Amino acid sequence: MKLLAWTLLTCSLASSAIAQGAGPAATADISAVSPALEKYRQRLFGEVWQRPDLSPRDRSVVTVAVLIARNQPVEMPHHFALALDHGVTPAELSEIITHLAFYSGWGNAMTAVAAASDLFARRGIGADQLPPASPPLLPIDAAGEADRATRVQQSAGPVSPGLVQYTGDILFKDLWLRPGLAPRDRSLVTVSSLIALGQVAQMPFHLNRAMDNGLTKAQAAEVIAHIAFHAGWPNAFSAVPIAREVFERRPG
Amino acid sequence: MKLLAWTLLTCSLASSAIAQGAGPAATADISAVSPALEKYRQRLFGEVWQRPDLSPRDRSVVTVAVLIARNQPVEMPHHFALALDHGVTPAELSEIITHLAFYSGWGNAMTAVAAASDLFARRGIGADQLPPASPPLLPIDAAGEADRATRVQQSAGPVSPGLVQYTGDILFKDLWLRPGLAPRDRSLVTVSSLIALGQVAQMPFHLNRAMDNGLTKAQAAEVIAHIAFHAGWPNAFSAVPIAREVFERRPG
Amino acid sequence: MKLLAWTLLTCSLASSAIAQGAGPAATADISAVSPALEKYRQRLFGEVWQRPDLSPRDRSVVTVAVLIARNQPVEMPHHFALALDHGVTPAELSEIITHLAFYSGWGNAMTAVAAASDLFARRGIGADQLPPASPPLLPIDAAGEADRATRVQQSAGPVSPGLVQYTGDILFKDLWLRPGLAPRDRSLVTVSSLIALGQVAQMPFHLNRAMDNGLTKAQAAEVIAHIAFHAGWPNAFSAVPIAREVFERRPG
Repeated sequence: MKLLAWTLLTCSLASSAIAQGAGPAATADISAVSPALEKYRQRLFGEVWQRPDLSPRDRSVVTVAVLIARNQPVEMPHHFALALDHGVTPAELSEIITHLAFYSGWGNAMTAVAAASDLFARRGIGADQLPPASPPLLPIDAAGEADRATRVQQSAGPVSPGLVQYTGDILFKDLWLRPGLAPRDRSLVTVSSLIALGQVAQMPFHLNRAMDNGLTKAQAAEVIAHIAFHAGWPNAFSAVPIAREVFERRPG
Repeated sequence: MKLLAWTLLTCSLASSAIAQGAGPAATADISAVSPALEKYRQRLFGEVWQRPDLSPRDRSVVTVAVLIARNQPVEMPHHFALALDHGVTPAELSEIITHLAFYSGWGNAMTAVAAASDLFARRGIGADQLPPASPPLLPIDAAGEADRATRVQQSAGPVSPGLVQYTGDILFKDLWLRPGLAPRDRSLVTVSSLIALGQVAQMPFHLNRAMDNGLTKAQAAEVIAHIAFHAGWPNAFSAVPIAREVFERRPG
Repeated sequence: MKLLAWTLLTCSLASSAIAQGAGPAATADISAVSPALEKYRQRLFGEVWQRPDLSPRDRSVVTVAVLIARNQPVEMPHHFALALDHGVTPAELSEIITHLAFYSGWGNAMTAVAAASDLFARRGIGADQLPPASPPLLPIDAAGEADRATRVQQSAGPVSPGLVQYTGDILFKDLWLRPGLAPRDRSLVTVSSLIALGQVAQMPFHLNRAMDNGLTKAQAAEVIAHIAFHAGWPNAFSAVPIAREVFERRPG
C-alpha cells in the first residue's frame, strides 16, 4: 500500500513535469484540480513569456536558474528541454548548473545534474559538447577584482578566513572566468537565483555587476516580473526596493 | 542498484506521507528512528491541533498552505485528505492551490496539483465540484484597490512596470475576487505562506488585510504557534515583531 | 510515458544520491553533465572537508543539519551513512532529526525519518541503540532559563501565548535538555540550520549559545565556510555580519 500511494503520487508528479508545456496531459491534469489554473497557465506561457523586453532564451535562463535555486526537480525536465529549444546550448546549461552549485548549494546542483543527464542522454548530447573542466579562463579585471577582494577581506576576514579564501580562489578567480557562459548570462543566473530565494543582501552587488556585464534596465525589470510567476509574488516584491536603489544610483 | 536505493528511499517517504496521521505505520516508521519524535507527534496532533482558538478546519487550511509554500510533497497526500475531512471543500482546496501559484510560485502549485489530482480521483471528486475558470467575481472595494494600486505604482512602477500591471490585473482585480474561497480564508492562506517562508516584508500589508477580512487577533496568535511546529520555530519567531506592530497599530 | 519519464528522473536522482561520495557512479553521472563540477567535487570532499579547524565528524553534523533544514532527500542516504562512518552515533543522528523537527519544521523531520529508517534497517541498528522517548533530562541552568523565558515573554507574549508556552515547555525545558546529544552539538545543529536557511534573526542568540556551549570561534568560522559549499555562498555571506558582531561582543 505504501508503494502504491507513492507510485500514484510520483506518476502524477511526472505528468505535471511533462505537462508544463502545452501537451494534452497539462490540460487534463491541471484542469482536474483547477480550471482556473489552466487558464492562468495559458496566460503565463502564451502572454508573459512572449513579452518583448526579455527574449525567450533569457526567460529560459531565468527559469532554469529559479528551478535549480529552489530545488524543484518536477519542473526541470520540461524547462531544461525548453531551454535547449530556446537556444541555450548544452554547454551553457552545464555552466549554469555548475555556477549554481556555488550560488545555491551543492545539493541543488546534484538534483539538476540528474535531470540534465537524462536530457542529454535522450538527445544524444555527449562529452564533446560540454565545457572542459579547466578551460583557458577569460581575462580578469585586475582592478575590479582587487577592489572586491579588499572589501570581502574587510567584512568577512575577521569572521571566516576560509570563506574569504574560497570566494577568491574558486568563485571570482575561477568560476566567473570560465568562458562557457557569457558574464552577462552568468550574472543573469546569479541575480535570478537571489531574487527567487529572497536573498536581498547580495542583490545590490550582483545586480550592479549584471548591469556592468550588459543586462539592461528594461531586461532587469522584466526579470523581476517573470520571477513573480515562477517564484511567487513576495520574492519579486522583496527585490523591488533593492532594484530601485541600484537603478537610481547608476549613471545614465 | 541505483533503482533499488531509490525505491527503498521513496517507499519510506511514502510510508511517512501516509504516516502523518495516526495509522500504525506512523508509529512504526518514526519510532524506528526516534521514539521521542513519536511522543512529540502525539502531542502535536493530540494537543496542539485541538487548541480552541483555531478550528481544525482553519488548522488544515494553514497546514496545507504551509506545505504548498514550502513545496513538501511527502506530507501533501495526508494533509490534503485531512483538510477535506475537516470541512475544507474540494473547491476551496482547488482555490488554495491556485492562489499559492502566485504567492509561492508556479512550480509549487504544480506539485500540489499532482497530489490533489490523485486525491480527487480516489474520492471521485469530478469537475462539477471545482470552481469554474472564470466565475462572476466578488465586488471590488474600489477605494481600497485604488489606494493599493497607487502605492504599488509609486514603489514598483519605476522598477518593473510588468510587475505592477500583473499585480493589478491578475492578483487584485481577479484572483482575490474569485468567490470560491472566502476573502478571510484567502488571507489566511497568504499570511500562512508568508510566515512559513520567513517573508516578513509583505507581512504587515497581508496581516492587516487578513484582520480586515475577519481573522481575529486570537486566531492570528494561534496561527503563529501552529506554524512553529510545521515550518520551524525560527520562522514563527521572525513573524512575532511584525505581528506585534500590526496588533498595536490596529484600533480596538 | 509519464511513468517512464519519472522513472528516468528518479533513477538519476538515486544515482546522484549514491554518487555524492566517491563511487564510480559519481564521476560518470556528474561528468556527463559538467566535467567542471566533478573537478570541484573532488576539491570539496578532498580538500575542504579535510581542513583542520573542523573535524570530519563536525562537518558531518553540519552537513546533515543543512540537508534536513533544506529538505534535500536526494543527498540524505549518502550523508547520513557518512555521518555514522565519521563517528556520529545512531542515537545522535536520531536526536539531530528530532531537534530539527522543531527548528526546521515537522515535515523536514519526516523526510529525514524516511532516509534514516532505511539506513538503520540496512545497518541492523535497532531500538536498543536509540534514545528513549523520555530520558532523565540534563540539569537546567535555572538562571539562564529564567532570563530567556522573561525575554521571550516580553517580546512574544503579547503576540502569541501559545508560542511562548511551547517554546518553554517543549524546546528549552525538554528538547534542549535531552542527554542524547551534547549541548555543544545541539547548538551546532541549530546554528547550521539557521545559516543554511538564511534565518539571520535568530542567529545572535544561538551563535552565542553555541559558543557558551563550547563551539570555538575557529570552528564557527569554518562552519560558515563549509556551509557556503552546501547551502550556497549567499547564505554564508548573510551570516558574516551577524557572526562578526557576536565575535566582537564576546569577552576574550
